[in-house]
Amino acid sequence: MKNIGINGYGTIGKRVADAVSCQDDMKIVGVTKRSPDFEAMTAVEKGYDLYISAPERESQFEEAGIKVTGTADELFEKLDVVVDCTPGGIGAKNKTDIYEKIGLKAIFEGGEDHDAIGCSFNAESNYEENLGKDYTRVVSCNTTGLCRTLKPIYDLAGIKKVRAVMVRRGADPGEVKKGPINGIVPSTEVPSHHGPDVQTIIKDINVISMAELVPTTLMHMHNVMVELENNISTDDVLDAFENAYRVIKIKKSLGIDSTAAIMEYAKELDRSRGNMYEIPVWEESVNVQDGELYYMQAVHQESDVVPENVDAIRALLELEEDYEKSILKTNKAMGII
Amino acid sequence: MKNIGINGYGTIGKRVADAVSCQDDMKIVGVTKRSPDFEAMTAVEKGYDLYISAPERESQFEEAGIKVTGTADELFEKLDVVVDCTPGGIGAKNKTDIYEKIGLKAIFEGGEDHDAIGCSFNAESNYEENLGKDYTRVVSCNTTGLCRTLKPIYDLAGIKKVRAVMVRRGADPGEVKKGPINGIVPSTEVPSHHGPDVQTIIKDINVISMAELVPTTLMHMHNVMVELENNISTDDVLDAFENAYRVIKIKKSLGIDSTAAIMEYAKELDRSRGNMYEIPVWEESVNVQDGELYYMQAVHQESDVVPENVDAIRALLELEEDYEKSILKTNKAMGII
Amino acid sequence: MKNIGINGYGTIGKRVADAVSCQDDMKIVGVTKRSPDFEAMTAVEKGYDLYISAPERESQFEEAGIKVTGTADELFEKLDVVVDCTPGGIGAKNKTDIYEKIGLKAIFEGGEDHDAIGCSFNAESNYEENLGKDYTRVVSCNTTGLCRTLKPIYDLAGIKKVRAVMVRRGADPGEVKKGPINGIVPSTEVPSHHGPDVQTIIKDINVISMAELVPTTLMHMHNVMVELENNISTDDVLDAFENAYRVIKIKKSLGIDSTAAIMEYAKELDRSRGNMYEIPVWEESVNVQDGELYYMQAVHQESDVVPENVDAIRALLELEEDYEKSILKTNKAMGII
Amino acid sequence: MKNIGINGYGTIGKRVADAVSCQDDMKIVGVTKRSPDFEAMTAVEKGYDLYISAPERESQFEEAGIKVTGTADELFEKLDVVVDCTPGGIGAKNKTDIYEKIGLKAIFEGGEDHDAIGCSFNAESNYEENLGKDYTRVVSCNTTGLCRTLKPIYDLAGIKKVRAVMVRRGADPGEVKKGPINGIVPSTEVPSHHGPDVQTIIKDINVISMAELVPTTLMHMHNVMVELENNISTDDVLDAFENAYRVIKIKKSLGIDSTAAIMEYAKELDRSRGNMYEIPVWEESVNVQDGELYYMQAVHQESDVVPENVDAIRALLELEEDYEKSILKTNKAMGII
Repeated sequence: MKNIGINGYGTIGKRVADAVSCQDDMKIVGVTKRSPDFEAMTAVEKGYDLYISAPERESQFEEAGIKVTGTADELFEKLDVVVDCTPGGIGAKNKTDIYEKIGLKAIFEGGEDHDAIGCSFNAESNYEENLGKDYTRVVSCNTTGLCRTLKPIYDLAGIKKVRAVMVRRGADPGEVKKGPINGIVPSTEVPSHHGPDVQTIIKDINVISMAELVPTTLMHMHNVMVELENNISTDDVLDAFENAYRVIKIKKSLGIDSTAAIMEYAKELDRSRGNMYEIPVWEESVNVQDGELYYMQAVHQESDVVPENVDAIRALLELEEDYEKSILKTNKAMGII
Repeated sequence: MKNIGINGYGTIGKRVADAVSCQDDMKIVGVTKRSPDFEAMTAVEKGYDLYISAPERESQFEEAGIKVTGTADELFEKLDVVVDCTPGGIGAKNKTDIYEKIGLKAIFEGGEDHDAIGCSFNAESNYEENLGKDYTRVVSCNTTGLCRTLKPIYDLAGIKKVRAVMVRRGADPGEVKKGPINGIVPSTEVPSHHGPDVQTIIKDINVISMAELVPTTLMHMHNVMVELENNISTDDVLDAFENAYRVIKIKKSLGIDSTAAIMEYAKELDRSRGNMYEIPVWEESVNVQDGELYYMQAVHQESDVVPENVDAIRALLELEEDYEKSILKTNKAMGII
Repeated sequence: MKNIGINGYGTIGKRVADAVSCQDDMKIVGVTKRSPDFEAMTAVEKGYDLYISAPERESQFEEAGIKVTGTADELFEKLDVVVDCTPGGIGAKNKTDIYEKIGLKAIFEGGEDHDAIGCSFNAESNYEENLGKDYTRVVSCNTTGLCRTLKPIYDLAGIKKVRAVMVRRGADPGEVKKGPINGIVPSTEVPSHHGPDVQTIIKDINVISMAELVPTTLMHMHNVMVELENNISTDDVLDAFENAYRVIKIKKSLGIDSTAAIMEYAKELDRSRGNMYEIPVWEESVNVQDGELYYMQAVHQESDVVPENVDAIRALLELEEDYEKSILKTNKAMGII
Repeated sequence: MKNIGINGYGTIGKRVADAVSCQDDMKIVGVTKRSPDFEAMTAVEKGYDLYISAPERESQFEEAGIKVTGTADELFEKLDVVVDCTPGGIGAKNKTDIYEKIGLKAIFEGGEDHDAIGCSFNAESNYEENLGKDYTRVVSCNTTGLCRTLKPIYDLAGIKKVRAVMVRRGADPGEVKKGPINGIVPSTEVPSHHGPDVQTIIKDINVISMAELVPTTLMHMHNVMVELENNISTDDVLDAFENAYRVIKIKKSLGIDSTAAIMEYAKELDRSRGNMYEIPVWEESVNVQDGELYYMQAVHQESDVVPENVDAIRALLELEEDYEKSILKTNKAMGII
């Protein structure tokens, strides 16, 4: 039973905490928070020991009636691995300022740069590369989404070039300060950074991406166009997605006609927090034409990376040598289809 | 163990099905659907027997691979009570065309007119009135929300007049065809129908309401101004809400700063489908000034009426004489705070 | 021909510049900008001399190809009145740090506090009070909207108490960084500050307000409930609004069913920038019942205060003693109905 | 002076009416409406003779105080060309049922199928083909947008294949009944119909498109990827866009960072109804890399086709043989850059 801590119990952190808690080879020793808010309060109610990263704020937690077990530094001493879910850029600082100094293995999220961490992780694509490493980075929700569906195609038919347009959600569901309310905000740097980020996982794939923000909070959407090396049929692709890990086919014909309907579907599946850990691909959109594959998929930015974090813990601690065994173990514990 | 059926397994119907399923004095015998969509599919996966209201569509269900147990009429024969969650206006037709003919007790939802059903229901306010009735109507999400907080104030201090402005969500989270996308749509009929609807429950209360639609899917919001008969303090009101059933006080100071944050909070509570059965009232907004009480509350349109439906079943079947016992029993089974 | 300058050529400033330009007793000598953006570029293209408030940025304007005439300080020397449309709070600083020192009369906007400026302005309500003053503040879009319709009712029937719920737009149309995208954000301070702000204009009126932000960019919406001193009819109110300045009655029956439709209507009127300077009141919503008046109005936050700024200039410079003459002169020049 | 009528004075029709009105070789004889709404009212106020397409509704117009000049049939008799801006699909019916019978030349909009009309129109691309024709169809806003920027690239460097992802607005600004409010709605038919529609104009171009709806009302956004026949540089493309008709380059560095900012920019240009007739391309997004051109452009769905309608009238009536002369004449009269 390995001891895991979450540094930053926010959107991703709290989900990773729950995912770790339902595994049988690791457990949550504690989580950290900076502010005494409702997430801190419910963390304690759920039974997580709460450690605070800004010790001078202890009185604020007290006033809010939220029990504090200790400081973040005290937590780190008890851990085999810390999962750092702090806001982008802070993780890299924590690595040099804290984790390296005390010799603590750490997993970072997609907000950190690959170069700052030195290694990146996607369970299906490069688990082995991460075995025994001290530090790795679970790639962002978008990169994870692309890896999940591109890897099986890459293995099946080879890929000449991928063109992906990522229509991104403007803010997470609980965030009310960020926009846009009405408008589309392009990333005018073209190609965007998403393509190269896939290459930190699947080395020799050529991915060109364009991206924009739109006024929705639920999911990102990917329009994917894949020039294939070898000819395959639409059915071959559907079979590949059927057999891929953490990819599900959804049907517009069953009323799953939008990202909003996917979130509704996730609620029907009784997922914790309405999570959709898998990458849903619209079956009707999958089409191979003249040697090029087209498909549309959605990405639940709050949760698709969550099972990856569990697998990354196993890889760093060498709890499991085989990526498929880890994936299946994680999936089973989390109820992933 | 009473036999309950759901006619119309949609937004409300599916939640009532789950709420009934976790009670120990009633069970779901079956649910009905018209279309073979993902809700029908997951209903079967969850173990509900599915009956179809449009028998001619049986082949469509078959093609979609969704198991059908029988027709709606076959279901009705097995029931002690049907909960009719069909779209507004259809319930009244079903009452005269079906339920009255076969002598089946039925509960309707707020989309039906009080006059068409003859009786209305809110557990905290008029449970006794509904004991043994054949038909009743659980009032709408908005009316339920008003009754929940007004009843304790009414009992405590008397009410001269209520003015309520209801800022309503434009569509439910899964609906993508309804707007507005950008704009506010007033109900120019002033006062709106919401005030009189409260009077179907609390007879001699004077409620004037104004309403508008805004581009959000999560919750309604109520701005409530109550002219009091007798003087009470802000603390008296906070105490009354503390002791009220299915009302919770929330704090902006804990980061619950919006309806979006309430929904996030509900996810932390691990509620099925992210439901918020209680009426959350912002503690900071509660204020008594010059004999008038002001407060702001939110209403989760998808779920606040769900526990009421359970209590209404008990009232109609006289499973429980005392409203508080029914409420507590329902709450406990559903994990309501 | 008085010399007017605009300090802060943004959402309000650029509209005031255009409104001043179409008067025959005042002209724009120059406008100031901090950043070399498209507003600065089009200001110059429209013929306004551009002065920069951050002189060290001159080279940035040069690089962007935007002609700079001088510094803000150089502009101020040429003016009879400056209209300060800088972001909230900066105006008060400019008053003490700049305008008072050089003896320049100034008009501020609703983002400043009444106490910091010492006087507030609404053309219909307190023009005379502002005659010859050195400094005044045109009250905010919301306060202006309330004054426009409450003043005629106050004069006609007396007012015991006003209750107003302001459903506010989350961001202006061109702002994409501010939310909420999906959610309602209450001002939990109840009553909100809007009520007292009306009293800076109509001294002895009792206005209680509640407010929230919603995900729209177009207009605010006011739900107004007025307890009357004397009995009047709905028709009396409609007549009063007919005769009020800068108030228009709109009809849902003509398809003006939302704030979005009002903005569409303003486009049909060929208003500059789609402005709606008047306060539109939904005719169908106006209703007097049991001594209380109810109505719904919308407020175009970008433009309703614009004609007020023109009148305020006339009051400060005593160009016109009579408020009605100023209003009519301004209205005629701007094409206000 | 040719006599033009507009059948269907709505979003497109009213803009075409105004555009025709500012030309010196054609004039508006009348416009038709079905319902007595604010558009009908302002049409008359602007001086357009109003004809009604549902004669039985004349009394409704009278009650609303809107002057009716006659019936649609009476209007058609006076015309050289009718511009049919009725909802999609109705135009094709009008062609066979009315216009062909009375021998009236007609222009249709992009909601009609190419095959039903027999000819399609884009001023820059195939004006000559339309000379003297009886019927043509101005292609949709999206197709027009693609033609505007692809034609100059096609002429300059040849095109192997175009991949375009169209992120579409959910509803027009004045429409409040259509969604989505929060969610992305994919067109799961991939490739979408937009690509083939370009081929009705530029015959041998290979365009593959994917499309989705998002919760915004302002503009569509196109992500365009063009595999080139011949090598050209990014600067060559920028020059080609500089010289293209009805294409403008916009800069994020000047604060035009979103479709919302483009609409704000259009307001600064004092365009009627805030129209943006040109296709704005983000200069920073234009990039040629490894023989492929990438760029992002926006499309103002309400107005980009408006000048095309004017040119189409000239082509059908052979008022001008040369497409460039027509374009320049139209542009000058409308103030297009």
